[in-house]
Amino acid sequence: MKGMFITVEGPDGSGKTTQLQLLVRALTEKGYEVVTTREPGGTKVGNSIREVLLSPEHDEMTARVEMMLYAASRAQNVEQIIRPALSRGAVVVCDRFVDASIAYQGFGLGYDLEQILALNEWATGGLKPDLTFLFDLSPTQASNRMKDRGQLDRIESRDEAFHQRVYDGFQTLLGEHPDRMVRIDANETIESIQDEVFDITLERLRERGVIES
Amino acid sequence: MKGMFITVEGPDGSGKTTQLQLLVRALTEKGYEVVTTREPGGTKVGNSIREVLLSPEHDEMTARVEMMLYAASRAQNVEQIIRPALSRGAVVVCDRFVDASIAYQGFGLGYDLEQILALNEWATGGLKPDLTFLFDLSPTQASNRMKDRGQLDRIESRDEAFHQRVYDGFQTLLGEHPDRMVRIDANETIESIQDEVFDITLERLRERGVIES
Repeated sequence: MKGMFITVEGPDGSGKTTQLQLLVRALTEKGYEVVTTREPGGTKVGNSIREVLLSPEHDEMTARVEMMLYAASRAQNVEQIIRPALSRGAVVVCDRFVDASIAYQGFGLGYDLEQILALNEWATGGLKPDLTFLFDLSPTQASNRMKDRGQLDRIESRDEAFHQRVYDGFQTLLGEHPDRMVRIDANETIESIQDEVFDITLERLRERGVIES
Repeated sequence: MKGMFITVEGPDGSGKTTQLQLLVRALTEKGYEVVTTREPGGTKVGNSIREVLLSPEHDEMTARVEMMLYAASRAQNVEQIIRPALSRGAVVVCDRFVDASIAYQGFGLGYDLEQILALNEWATGGLKPDLTFLFDLSPTQASNRMKDRGQLDRIESRDEAFHQRVYDGFQTLLGEHPDRMVRIDANETIESIQDEVFDITLERLRERGVIES
């Protein structure tokens, strides 16, 4: 495929969504076709699945079901949005992807990593990001930032130990994928992060020959 | 497990749900603990997934996603309702189960049967029904009955060829599982079917030693 698939990962409160929007704006201003999506969600079907996943009413949902719903939303996103956009040569920027399932359902909930990988391999038809920005923020800091925002959803309201395991999971992934994953210090200023993310993206786009150098 | 797991299958309009209710009432009157559930749905989480699946707004849903959502609803149903009830020795009667996924997503939508089986084996932890009543009604008759009921959902409104493939799929399953699956002629009277279903159920319960002969 001609385009480039970028994902952003990290806890809620890490600023990843703000930075995603800034990156999209900067790339669009340079004249590139950019498609943004998010998980869970990104499509009409995916947004309905997102509501099921995040509703505080669904406290009986099993880990297996949670994992399947994330994978289902992802499958819809890949088939309906991501693959067609990449085929056109667009840059696709997705807020969370398979790494989030590994960190949250695998490390966080203790679900079997091999099963998560197998289910997602199947759901995505084997699609992998070309570049992933991991927004690094301690669980305590993330939690404090989220409390300022008001009510927490079903995943956010899990306990501190859960969020620490998720954090450790992301660090493990970072160690395993040094080429694909780039650590972003979420304590830096918005402007500084914005420049860093944009510069790295342009460099990778050049390397892939998506844009002229 | 001590209980007995019964499923009813067949097209909408075949009377399976009415018969399920009659069977449950008859077994309950005889003093047995009976738990009823349905798919998709059966639990709060499952009912939310059911809404996503059946909403006519979701016409972009891919076959893969449809299959995953049915399996997710099923996983919740098995873990939260069915297995605990069977462990207590209850009779569980479920409106549709894995056979429906094979008939609708496999035969109907042409999705790979091996993949459907593998996904469902995983979703259910390998749970199989002890007895399945297949309500046999031609696609034309089922369609006429449903039109009388009013608005059709996303699955019901698929074309005639789809419903014919689903029908053929159920017939294939019937041939493959002669011990587990019992064909019920949905053209018989409600009373006649009611007696047949009840008699067969009592016989199987006796064979399994769930009730005294």
